[in-house]
Amino acid sequence: MITALAGGVGAARFLTGLTQLIKQEDLTVIVNTGDDIDLFGLHISPDIDIVTYTLASIINDEKGWGIKDDTFNCLNMLKLFSEVDWFNLGDRDFATSILRTNMLKNGATLSQISAKVSRDLGLKLKILPMTDDKFATYVQIPGDSIHFEEYMVKRAAKDPVLDVKFVGAETAKPAEGVIDAIMDSDRVIICPSNPIVSIGTILSIQGVRDALRKTRAKKVAVSPIVAGAPIKGPADKLLNGLGVEVSAFGVAKLYVDFLDGFVIDSMDAAEKSRIEGLGVKVAVVNTLMKDLASKVALAKIVLDL
Amino acid sequence: MITALAGGVGAARFLTGLTQLIKQEDLTVIVNTGDDIDLFGLHISPDIDIVTYTLASIINDEKGWGIKDDTFNCLNMLKLFSEVDWFNLGDRDFATSILRTNMLKNGATLSQISAKVSRDLGLKLKILPMTDDKFATYVQIPGDSIHFEEYMVKRAAKDPVLDVKFVGAETAKPAEGVIDAIMDSDRVIICPSNPIVSIGTILSIQGVRDALRKTRAKKVAVSPIVAGAPIKGPADKLLNGLGVEVSAFGVAKLYVDFLDGFVIDSMDAAEKSRIEGLGVKVAVVNTLMKDLASKVALAKIVLDL
Repeated sequence: MITALAGGVGAARFLTGLTQLIKQEDLTVIVNTGDDIDLFGLHISPDIDIVTYTLASIINDEKGWGIKDDTFNCLNMLKLFSEVDWFNLGDRDFATSILRTNMLKNGATLSQISAKVSRDLGLKLKILPMTDDKFATYVQIPGDSIHFEEYMVKRAAKDPVLDVKFVGAETAKPAEGVIDAIMDSDRVIICPSNPIVSIGTILSIQGVRDALRKTRAKKVAVSPIVAGAPIKGPADKLLNGLGVEVSAFGVAKLYVDFLDGFVIDSMDAAEKSRIEGLGVKVAVVNTLMKDLASKVALAKIVLDL
Repeated sequence: MITALAGGVGAARFLTGLTQLIKQEDLTVIVNTGDDIDLFGLHISPDIDIVTYTLASIINDEKGWGIKDDTFNCLNMLKLFSEVDWFNLGDRDFATSILRTNMLKNGATLSQISAKVSRDLGLKLKILPMTDDKFATYVQIPGDSIHFEEYMVKRAAKDPVLDVKFVGAETAKPAEGVIDAIMDSDRVIICPSNPIVSIGTILSIQGVRDALRKTRAKKVAVSPIVAGAPIKGPADKLLNGLGVEVSAFGVAKLYVDFLDGFVIDSMDAAEKSRIEGLGVKVAVVNTLMKDLASKVALAKIVLDL
């Protein structure tokens, strides 16, 4: 049994490789819900949808989010009504959020909804939201505190980051199955996702960090930072804002209390001994996932380390 | 000032002609909301949307409902999730219902929402829902009582009708402006809509029928029944089920307590004297609205009677 902690695009691409090597039935993915946001009166779960669509092979690969060949007629009409004009959601994608919102209204949990959506899309793995409770990542920028999606999408991650707040972290309980998945796995993989707003959120949920320390599972992470910069997204600004070194070493330090192995990119080979100095085993490989073969190769390293 | 009572397709087509003859600013349309239904967790107002889209020239003319050239990707995805599979709503059309649902959730009334949507679509007339309160038309068929849309769309109006119930009629108040529009008009037009489930619902709202009796406005109806059958829709089954004669005369009798003039089709010329016997002035013309010219011609008759 394998459990993976995941954010959005980077994690989803990594998991595409992993699911070539292990049976979906043996995989549980715990997904960040700090990006979840209510827009147009609909509950949108960006990372859950990205992971689900990617593994169901319906993702828009170019964009990394949304459904391939989707249309945007609903959104364009909403723009005509002067609704939120900065968030993009395709017509098929709207369906997922309409379903989610309706099921939430009728008392279902995010976990139940994620299970239904992934099952209906033909998946056999378990996709678990990190929590079924309210949780939202807010970014403190000069003069304002804004939702992560607003920081990321509306303002294109241009603002300097002063701080990051996890609203709800103090009370949010792990979704059913989250702690068990960590405790009962042979291996827990921390995907190459943003260590603050994707993995950091999951780690902030009550009992998760503790379970990672206690489980007998091997815990292996893939560095999302290569040559001092994130492959995708604003991790550098967020890490900088929090005073964390923007390097594989900086990320390793965030996970050091539970991490057994760390896969870093060849370009960061020089950091190997520093990270090993933290007591973490290190594999140095090419971590760029440019095609399915490289995703599978990377997954193999992670399974073997 | 002109006020029209309207259902869906027939009314909308008639109003297209009317708005060629009078300024939109001088027109208030009071629209049936008995067809309103909550599906997919969204509040759908079929008749308001049909009237709005038609007058905004974005209606799908062939179908009579929905927006022209709309796509159906959101609906198809919802079908994949095994949601309600009998109701059709295009992607742009979903936007209107998403907006409406969100505004309702935030405390807006149907009136305020209809005003916003029609304004955003460039209309200058007033489109008023008959009520801002809950109201639903239910049809009693053998062994079941079902929502009108279920009777009409899901079951294709195939069941015999035993009775029709207006759920909410006892408490629903007229939307703000409805009574004033009737009282302050020079002419109230009862559009060629179903006399039970489109006009009958409006007449069932507290104070509406009374206002129609009291207003100094001339009240002129266009018969939705031609040669013993409705132009469109299941009016014959509904009238039959309620023991009402399926004829222009049968409809005239339903409105006789307030009606001044009635426009009937040439095919029903034989009914003229019977209807006049009710004390109603009658015009006999071709009422089939096959193109804009015939719509305008019909509207002119209604304005002049």
